[in-house]
Amino acid sequence: MNDTTALRTNFLAYLESLKFEKRPQELYDPVNYILSIGGKRMRPVLLLMACELFGGDSKKALPAAFSVELFHNFSLLHDDIMDEAPLRRGKPTVHMKYDANTAILSGDVMMIYAYQFLIQGNEHLAVPLLKIFNQSAIDVCEGQQYDMNFETRDDVEISEYLTMIELKTAALLGGSLELGALIGGASKDNARLIAGFGRDVGIAFQLQDDILDSFGDPAKFGKKVGGDIAQNKKTFLLLKALELADAQKEKELERWIATDDNEVAKIKAIKEIYLDLGIPQLAEKLKLDYLEKGMAQLNAISVPKERKKFLRQFAEVLMKREV
Amino acid sequence: MNDTTALRTNFLAYLESLKFEKRPQELYDPVNYILSIGGKRMRPVLLLMACELFGGDSKKALPAAFSVELFHNFSLLHDDIMDEAPLRRGKPTVHMKYDANTAILSGDVMMIYAYQFLIQGNEHLAVPLLKIFNQSAIDVCEGQQYDMNFETRDDVEISEYLTMIELKTAALLGGSLELGALIGGASKDNARLIAGFGRDVGIAFQLQDDILDSFGDPAKFGKKVGGDIAQNKKTFLLLKALELADAQKEKELERWIATDDNEVAKIKAIKEIYLDLGIPQLAEKLKLDYLEKGMAQLNAISVPKERKKFLRQFAEVLMKREV
Repeated sequence: MNDTTALRTNFLAYLESLKFEKRPQELYDPVNYILSIGGKRMRPVLLLMACELFGGDSKKALPAAFSVELFHNFSLLHDDIMDEAPLRRGKPTVHMKYDANTAILSGDVMMIYAYQFLIQGNEHLAVPLLKIFNQSAIDVCEGQQYDMNFETRDDVEISEYLTMIELKTAALLGGSLELGALIGGASKDNARLIAGFGRDVGIAFQLQDDILDSFGDPAKFGKKVGGDIAQNKKTFLLLKALELADAQKEKELERWIATDDNEVAKIKAIKEIYLDLGIPQLAEKLKLDYLEKGMAQLNAISVPKERKKFLRQFAEVLMKREV
Repeated sequence: MNDTTALRTNFLAYLESLKFEKRPQELYDPVNYILSIGGKRMRPVLLLMACELFGGDSKKALPAAFSVELFHNFSLLHDDIMDEAPLRRGKPTVHMKYDANTAILSGDVMMIYAYQFLIQGNEHLAVPLLKIFNQSAIDVCEGQQYDMNFETRDDVEISEYLTMIELKTAALLGGSLELGALIGGASKDNARLIAGFGRDVGIAFQLQDDILDSFGDPAKFGKKVGGDIAQNKKTFLLLKALELADAQKEKELERWIATDDNEVAKIKAIKEIYLDLGIPQLAEKLKLDYLEKGMAQLNAISVPKERKKFLRQFAEVLMKREV
């Protein structure tokens, strides 16, 4: 069995060998660009780990690992257009470096190739692989739509927010693990357990991201701390604060939400309200609940405990804390 | 065996039964909208005809027929953004009726559903169906990219133009026929022949469209006659005219190409140059060559001749002329 680092190295070597040299260059250059500028490669590594967990040869899962990485990057290309994001991984987004039409069409072709690589080398599993992949892919689109809807809605419930992050982020993590498990020869029950582990850890991961976005160490956090607050993003933190605030604090919150000409003061003030209401602790608690639920499913998988070591470590590192 | 009309009726009934009632509504409403505003349903009908040609039950091919219609409409959603097209089938395009982000994301989810329906009811054929579908889908993207590249290139060759329309338009017609043939139980050889028939008839169809765009009867032609000329679209007609023009005619052509403030005169003048150079006749000849090549492949398919009647008629109607 290989650890995370070894599997990531194997995946990167495979990725390097797969440059799209096809014509027209204008279609494939952006594909090579987005794939080359990095990223954590979380989904492919999870897929490979799941394959090895069940005793499979992770080399046979490399095309499927590439498939989920292609799909993830396709969704980034299109999401970045929708969100008008200038940067991705510290580099210009495809629609900025090229243009929006390029980002649309190169994204499209990446999705098609994702389906091609999905079954490569595992054609005997084509039908179940397709079903899992399709469901995750539909979830990602639905999650992105909910996320966009929330921007203009004032009545988002916490349960809706949790559903949204489950669809947009956690589903593909769970799906990647389930695909790897299937290729590794897992039973249906075990495959479902690992998918559940991935979904719950994925939700915990997103909650962690939300906490860091407001309370992270600026020196360590990759993005600007306070970005969610500045953009009035309806994360768990904001929704819970609005729920718990008394009349006066609610008025204060609403006033800051309506403010867009004093970002520094806004971030500072809203963080203070969060702290007053104990929001970081509540978010941390919810995160740990999901993490625990995920770990319970990992524990329930019927393979020897020591085989689960790397997946457990992966989840812990993801949370940047010991559990 | 059913004729075109009967198969189209069956397909429309199936389509009607398949409304996307899922949430979020903002994602699925545009899907229902684009599917409801009509279109010739050429690809699904061809798929069903190919299935019946080989003795298959076309009811079993309805999900795959829906798949190619979904894919075609996905590509329209995205192409219409790229081309900034205001109207489709006489109705507002999705990016105009909703917005560009909606057209991107609803298009994406249509493509995923296309893969879901592709194998529905025909899971034993999942691998070959996927391979044919993927290749056609990649072709469509590459064709669209070439089409966009040609807008800013001044050295497009006729052979490149023919490759572009083969990829962008003919590939999915051929692919639809091949998918239907496979579901109908065709041999590999017969499936390849019908795919070739579809590709060649598809190229002929696009050439016919190019001719009609400049020389069609305004009362019968759906779009504005002269649109390609007004936009300097590098169709076979323009490329051939530039090839055959002597120095003086070339200068004249170039002058009109550079003119964009007198559309009526421009269309009239360029049409006259086309007529002087015998371009419509050459286009007609090339179209018939492709049609003949296509028909030869249909003839070579090893099923009784009378079974091919409907496909032959379909091609003839498509050309709007007797062959």
